[in-house]
Amino acid sequence: MKRLDEKIQTLPIVRFREGKQEELTDLVIKESVLSIFLNHHKLVSLICSPDHYQYLAVGFLLSEGIIQSPAEIKSITIEESCVLIEAELQNSTLEYAVTIASGCGKGVTFHRALEVKKERHFDFLLSPETVSRLMKEFEQSSHLFKITGGVHAAAVANNKEILIFHEDLSRHNALDKVLGECWLENISLQDKIVLLSGRVSSEILLKVARTEISVVISHSAVTNLAVELAEKVGITLLGFARGRRINVYSHPQRIRNFSEDLTF
Amino acid sequence: MKRLDEKIQTLPIVRFREGKQEELTDLVIKESVLSIFLNHHKLVSLICSPDHYQYLAVGFLLSEGIIQSPAEIKSITIEESCVLIEAELQNSTLEYAVTIASGCGKGVTFHRALEVKKERHFDFLLSPETVSRLMKEFEQSSHLFKITGGVHAAAVANNKEILIFHEDLSRHNALDKVLGECWLENISLQDKIVLLSGRVSSEILLKVARTEISVVISHSAVTNLAVELAEKVGITLLGFARGRRINVYSHPQRIRNFSEDLTF
Repeated sequence: MKRLDEKIQTLPIVRFREGKQEELTDLVIKESVLSIFLNHHKLVSLICSPDHYQYLAVGFLLSEGIIQSPAEIKSITIEESCVLIEAELQNSTLEYAVTIASGCGKGVTFHRALEVKKERHFDFLLSPETVSRLMKEFEQSSHLFKITGGVHAAAVANNKEILIFHEDLSRHNALDKVLGECWLENISLQDKIVLLSGRVSSEILLKVARTEISVVISHSAVTNLAVELAEKVGITLLGFARGRRINVYSHPQRIRNFSEDLTF
Repeated sequence: MKRLDEKIQTLPIVRFREGKQEELTDLVIKESVLSIFLNHHKLVSLICSPDHYQYLAVGFLLSEGIIQSPAEIKSITIEESCVLIEAELQNSTLEYAVTIASGCGKGVTFHRALEVKKERHFDFLLSPETVSRLMKEFEQSSHLFKITGGVHAAAVANNKEILIFHEDLSRHNALDKVLGECWLENISLQDKIVLLSGRVSSEILLKVARTEISVVISHSAVTNLAVELAEKVGITLLGFARGRRINVYSHPQRIRNFSEDLTF
């Protein structure tokens, strides 16, 4: 993991406070551009925080439905701010990949995601106490946010603890980084939970829908299309999970008070 | 202006509060997809809040550097969730427009924006009191945010009051809507201020850099590339403008205590 000071920069600023002016230094979040190449063709340039490029690239390819399995990936090379991926595409073509990555194929991927039936367990239960506890741990993990106030966080957890955590200035990238790490490190997403600091739009929900994840919990708001999509693909969507208050927008049967949880 | 209830949707939810479960209805933000066509070619599909499509489309074309002046626009037609624009392109081609709109031309537009020297007044002064007062008015205007917690706001103001205000689920779109309205309604951007609820990245700063705006104020964080770009193009960039605390990241000479302001 890169050190924190590679992701932030110290700058001289002028601060006004209660009408008084002072000169000091402040920390701001660093922004970089990552270009992803698939089979020697440039797919996309993402504005991102400068770390974990391989997870971001692999997460992007899979969560956007460009590749269907990490097994398709033959090699990953990182050169400066480029990730070069060689893959044996199975259910898609390079032309399709370029269209999707450029953002021109949103309609296509939406329908395709609904066709892909991922197996999601409906006997996976989570108590509201566990949700509150995981979100508390999640918020306490956001070191970069505490320093700069300028990033989003995403995590993958089981029903006990956070397993993978990343921060990025884009909420899409933060999610791709945690999914990418799980895929590359062979961490199963079955019976796992995604935690998000940012708003859940249909784009975010669609990325999760391409995995086996069954519960998405956000600190922020959700949109109507995200709720509609979560309902269709069998994902339990929670929003405004703050303190001991939680809104459940779809498939609430997975969130329940049950006795095993009363012990902590 | 569309009524508020066209931008929000009522949904049944399950809420847990202090461990107790209740069923109720909640308001969530509506998400729609707007497709922008330029001279019969589809440029881009934007996920957005469903209002002011013409401002969004025109703002997007201008702030992304696809057209240089509203005078290039010959006609605007709105059909369902599409905006069809006919334009006489002057400094760009349709091919260039398609590349930029798909997000593949970020490097190109960055250099182009630096070449375009917009005239920005350095004798335009703003007191920290005015900044605090405008940001207070800005926050109080965010009705949709108060209801849903799921949108970003942007405004154009002079040194006395807010002139144009829009909310959208994307911070890019909120900015494009206010810029688009100014361009379509012939409101000069010289000596104007942009107010933003969301983070200022290089993409956001680049949009503003294509106008004559000289001051950008955000409630949130700024990135290092946004500061670098603001420095180069002569924009005064303020972040974390909350209450009577303000950080000035570039060209601080425009922010100053001066006597005329002591009266309010």
